[in-house]
Amino acid sequence: MQALIYNGPGKKNLEDRPKPTLQAPTDAVVRITKTTICGTDLHILKGDVPTCAAGTVLGHEGVGIVDAVGAGVTTFKPGDRVLISCISACGRCDYCRKGMYSHCTTGGWILGNRIDGTQAEFVRIPYADTSLYPIPAGADEEALVMLSDILPTGFECGVLNGKVQVGGSVAIVGSGPIGLAALLTAQFHSPSQIIMIDLDNNRLAVSQRFGATEIVNSSDGKAAERVMALTGGRGVDTAIEAVGIPATFELCQDIVAPGGTIANVGVHGVKVDLHLERLWSHNVTITTRLVDTVTIPMLLKTVQSKRIDAGQLITHRFRLDQILQAYETFGKASSTKALKVMIEA
Amino acid sequence: MQALIYNGPGKKNLEDRPKPTLQAPTDAVVRITKTTICGTDLHILKGDVPTCAAGTVLGHEGVGIVDAVGAGVTTFKPGDRVLISCISACGRCDYCRKGMYSHCTTGGWILGNRIDGTQAEFVRIPYADTSLYPIPAGADEEALVMLSDILPTGFECGVLNGKVQVGGSVAIVGSGPIGLAALLTAQFHSPSQIIMIDLDNNRLAVSQRFGATEIVNSSDGKAAERVMALTGGRGVDTAIEAVGIPATFELCQDIVAPGGTIANVGVHGVKVDLHLERLWSHNVTITTRLVDTVTIPMLLKTVQSKRIDAGQLITHRFRLDQILQAYETFGKASSTKALKVMIEA
Amino acid sequence: MQALIYNGPGKKNLEDRPKPTLQAPTDAVVRITKTTICGTDLHILKGDVPTCAAGTVLGHEGVGIVDAVGAGVTTFKPGDRVLISCISACGRCDYCRKGMYSHCTTGGWILGNRIDGTQAEFVRIPYADTSLYPIPAGADEEALVMLSDILPTGFECGVLNGKVQVGGSVAIVGSGPIGLAALLTAQFHSPSQIIMIDLDNNRLAVSQRFGATEIVNSSDGKAAERVMALTGGRGVDTAIEAVGIPATFELCQDIVAPGGTIANVGVHGVKVDLHLERLWSHNVTITTRLVDTVTIPMLLKTVQSKRIDAGQLITHRFRLDQILQAYETFGKASSTKALKVMIEA
Amino acid sequence: MQALIYNGPGKKNLEDRPKPTLQAPTDAVVRITKTTICGTDLHILKGDVPTCAAGTVLGHEGVGIVDAVGAGVTTFKPGDRVLISCISACGRCDYCRKGMYSHCTTGGWILGNRIDGTQAEFVRIPYADTSLYPIPAGADEEALVMLSDILPTGFECGVLNGKVQVGGSVAIVGSGPIGLAALLTAQFHSPSQIIMIDLDNNRLAVSQRFGATEIVNSSDGKAAERVMALTGGRGVDTAIEAVGIPATFELCQDIVAPGGTIANVGVHGVKVDLHLERLWSHNVTITTRLVDTVTIPMLLKTVQSKRIDAGQLITHRFRLDQILQAYETFGKASSTKALKVMIEA
Repeated sequence: MQALIYNGPGKKNLEDRPKPTLQAPTDAVVRITKTTICGTDLHILKGDVPTCAAGTVLGHEGVGIVDAVGAGVTTFKPGDRVLISCISACGRCDYCRKGMYSHCTTGGWILGNRIDGTQAEFVRIPYADTSLYPIPAGADEEALVMLSDILPTGFECGVLNGKVQVGGSVAIVGSGPIGLAALLTAQFHSPSQIIMIDLDNNRLAVSQRFGATEIVNSSDGKAAERVMALTGGRGVDTAIEAVGIPATFELCQDIVAPGGTIANVGVHGVKVDLHLERLWSHNVTITTRLVDTVTIPMLLKTVQSKRIDAGQLITHRFRLDQILQAYETFGKASSTKALKVMIEA
Repeated sequence: MQALIYNGPGKKNLEDRPKPTLQAPTDAVVRITKTTICGTDLHILKGDVPTCAAGTVLGHEGVGIVDAVGAGVTTFKPGDRVLISCISACGRCDYCRKGMYSHCTTGGWILGNRIDGTQAEFVRIPYADTSLYPIPAGADEEALVMLSDILPTGFECGVLNGKVQVGGSVAIVGSGPIGLAALLTAQFHSPSQIIMIDLDNNRLAVSQRFGATEIVNSSDGKAAERVMALTGGRGVDTAIEAVGIPATFELCQDIVAPGGTIANVGVHGVKVDLHLERLWSHNVTITTRLVDTVTIPMLLKTVQSKRIDAGQLITHRFRLDQILQAYETFGKASSTKALKVMIEA
Repeated sequence: MQALIYNGPGKKNLEDRPKPTLQAPTDAVVRITKTTICGTDLHILKGDVPTCAAGTVLGHEGVGIVDAVGAGVTTFKPGDRVLISCISACGRCDYCRKGMYSHCTTGGWILGNRIDGTQAEFVRIPYADTSLYPIPAGADEEALVMLSDILPTGFECGVLNGKVQVGGSVAIVGSGPIGLAALLTAQFHSPSQIIMIDLDNNRLAVSQRFGATEIVNSSDGKAAERVMALTGGRGVDTAIEAVGIPATFELCQDIVAPGGTIANVGVHGVKVDLHLERLWSHNVTITTRLVDTVTIPMLLKTVQSKRIDAGQLITHRFRLDQILQAYETFGKASSTKALKVMIEA
Repeated sequence: MQALIYNGPGKKNLEDRPKPTLQAPTDAVVRITKTTICGTDLHILKGDVPTCAAGTVLGHEGVGIVDAVGAGVTTFKPGDRVLISCISACGRCDYCRKGMYSHCTTGGWILGNRIDGTQAEFVRIPYADTSLYPIPAGADEEALVMLSDILPTGFECGVLNGKVQVGGSVAIVGSGPIGLAALLTAQFHSPSQIIMIDLDNNRLAVSQRFGATEIVNSSDGKAAERVMALTGGRGVDTAIEAVGIPATFELCQDIVAPGGTIANVGVHGVKVDLHLERLWSHNVTITTRLVDTVTIPMLLKTVQSKRIDAGQLITHRFRLDQILQAYETFGKASSTKALKVMIEA
């Protein structure tokens, strides 16, 4: 089968690989019908993710059709259409019991990282019963690819952790795909203000189309000032960090209101300054989270009932044999204006 | 009347002052019967609290008897025995409505800071209806002085913010009065482990008497290692920072389990490092808070029903005319073994 | 001044009364600019509310302009435009401290019940600081009249108590003004299904316009069957009772899913059957509540940011001197299709 | 093997049965070392549980040693000491994902009901990975038998659903084993009052030994009056119904404070009256629940750390071949003063 292989820092290729097989009674093999590329895949390619060995098939998002299941799998059978979670959950360890699938002692984020992923014709899914989700008949499968990772990430790490409230104020720092996913899902809770902050005017324009009530281009260094003015000097109830660098986390500390929450979504490579000399008395909460994807069933219902249009995140479409071109397009997002690229397998 | 006056950095004196009078219809004047000294008073004396002007009467804790009330006060009348909250709450601004009295737009921590405090024979209490609490007949008034600040601080900022859980594990970094207050009130929630960490063996011995399940002297730099061993390599569900310096906040980051909470109680003078490069994926929560004292009524019930012995925090007793000696004793806690010093006015 | 007087069961009149005056330092007198009629006013007129004495001015909703304030009032001054809560809250008793204003020991629902109300040119408001809300410049004051009682009631007693969830399913039994208020505010939480149930096809048609995803006319006695079919045999996560009779509460028990909640909003005159012989094992929650109006500030923000169009509940408009005609119209809602009638004073 | 068989209403016998075998890859067979009898077993014997067919082995509590596991079981291996949950949970259906194991679509309470149970030398446990719990080395296994059903039932259905709070007031109606389990676990949350109500003075005396702050013998019909007096006329924050008849549920409605919660634990055979004509405005919550046993891991920690002495519920001990005598003793609890009877297999 065809598969996109990570061949060490800076190197990737579309190669021929043997079709994966069942290795444990709890496994399933899924034929991929649609997959996509994540910012994390670019991190791996830069060599930033040491857990991912050269030779691994990349990709942790997608939908497909069950091809084979192990003896212990009771929820799915060959032919079932399924949504793949980016997180593999055994469903039985202490962390899984608490809904913290990201820290599953034998799973977590392993797809396209520690084991072969979804940018291929077939993928082996461990713990299939608790890592796959049935796709309702007639669903928009392209839209559902957004539920493998990006929408649950924006929703769980940004919106839920950030305690977005009816009538509250929200600032999202970073208008890339993850920031936009937070923007789309924040609207489930009807805040009165959602301020999007970015350096890229195109992405800010997109965010207005997606429901931002105000936009701030932070390139002049006056974003904090602007946000304070937009909130009557009070700051925001929820600040969502969706970039992953010290400067954006700093901005969140400057704009969070007393009693508010900073929800970190970004993947950080270096430590940041935390201004406890000022914040110790501000009654603020700071949260971090790797997505658990526990909200996939809930999000499925919102897609099915059209409370959210997840498909609008998709800007480009490719076939699996064009995946190198898809990476090219996705990697140069500022010129191609790519958000999510859909890949048909 | 006699009053302890802050005369600028490093200077204090017991002086004669006019008795305070009612200034607003919502004021009360209270005759102090018992007061105490807080670590924050020492901070003021070092010059660390710029909001406190020279000439201010110090003190924000105490119990007493109502001497006079303004026309708008409906809950209290002269002669009523009352507990004074360290936080003045108007009860009507947005913050007070949410129970965030510490950020009351015209109150908050003002006693013994922006206005004259309780280390005197009389004190004026703004917003008396929502800043004083009735003392039940027969109550142990010495114990109740612990409810003005220290017990609510340990409980709200440490235990409640730290989400201490039945069967959970807790580490408290710092075994001074505030850390011990967190230790006492953490037991309300029946955690299975409470590990106390400090450099002072006397305070660690006290914490064992107060209910710690394990103690760790951190002077050898191996506290994190020890806590990990005590928790089966997992770390603690709740880490309470009760010191206020970068090293202790760092330790909290080293020992918090995935999914756990770091509750900051300490007053910090400088920024700290936050290791988002490691914690971004650990599903942790970090909280800060200035005490709101919203739990005073709840804590009163626990003192009355003997669920907590607040009085055991009191190690020394003085009369108001001995207050300079009381400061001396409290300021040299490591040699005097002082926790809280009781001052009878 | 002109005022609508309750003269005992079945009797009401528009009469001339002296303008109210301040009686306590915490009082305000407000000149009413807009008021409305509530279903509860009709209950009083039937003689069902024994706390309301003959001679009382009716009405507990409205907006106006502050005319005078007592010495203890600090938030408002004459000339301020204000929204009147139907609940008077002292802000200092145990219940008020917990946000349970409905049970304020000296307030609660007293306006137009135990003391004179708002269907008059002027009204005295006790505890003005915590019972009035400032109206932002440029606000739609007609819409804000819906925030005195009906929207907080639908939201607090129905939506919040009913734990309406993103992606969840909701049934609202009763499509009168209160049921419609629950329908409008339920959408703040983006449920995937909102099924409205009523006997009146006009009101069901209105509810579709207001956002219901499905409607069920229950006149054939098969509503439960229909709801089960619409929810795949599972029942609803939230059932909101917005009528107040045994039959509708019974229906809620028939349609609530395991793990779901029945939120009672209706005012009941007789006891109901609770089928614990079936429900004891269903992990259900049943809630009751008299509105506390603690959500008025939050709801104000949603009106200001146009997340909700509260004004669409208003179907008819009258002047205060036409209030008897307004009662006539409101009382015959099935023929007049009245929801809320606006009265300009 | 020996097994206690239900032979239809009123009939039971100790019979010889074939040892159970694995039927699915997710099964385990466990050799029982200790089991006990539950009030529900008596209900079955009365013929009140139609899902339990004649010929079934009774019993849903116990500890033992794993004898065999299916191919899909990854957490346990033969020889492991395990605690058996009374609830079988597949860990993969929607209900299990939410922690509502009691409503598992293919499990729930089936042991000793729909399938053979634990009052035997061996038992087959479906979904072993998510229905068994590892026993730590050195644990008191007798005490752990209390974690199969009775302690989680008291804790989840009574204490957690009843929102028992630090400093709050609790009344528990019924001092049988379940009421006592609620009493023991309520103390995890440090309420200031726990009032036990029963008709049996022996059980009331036991409850005082177990930590009740007050006891009320309700045989004179004045229990409500007494509880109101003990709570200053306010009623209790939490009323736990641990009997299962209309009179005791009625009592709960009479003693719950505004804003309080009635947590139903009792198994009811007939409907009850719900006084909405009075309670509609009292801001109360009523909950029902079949135990989910999700708190077993948490409870294990509290037993291990000696926060709770579960063993004190055990009053009598028998061997499996004496089980008919054990039933006799347990069935005549008022004369034998039996709480839980331990059966060694």
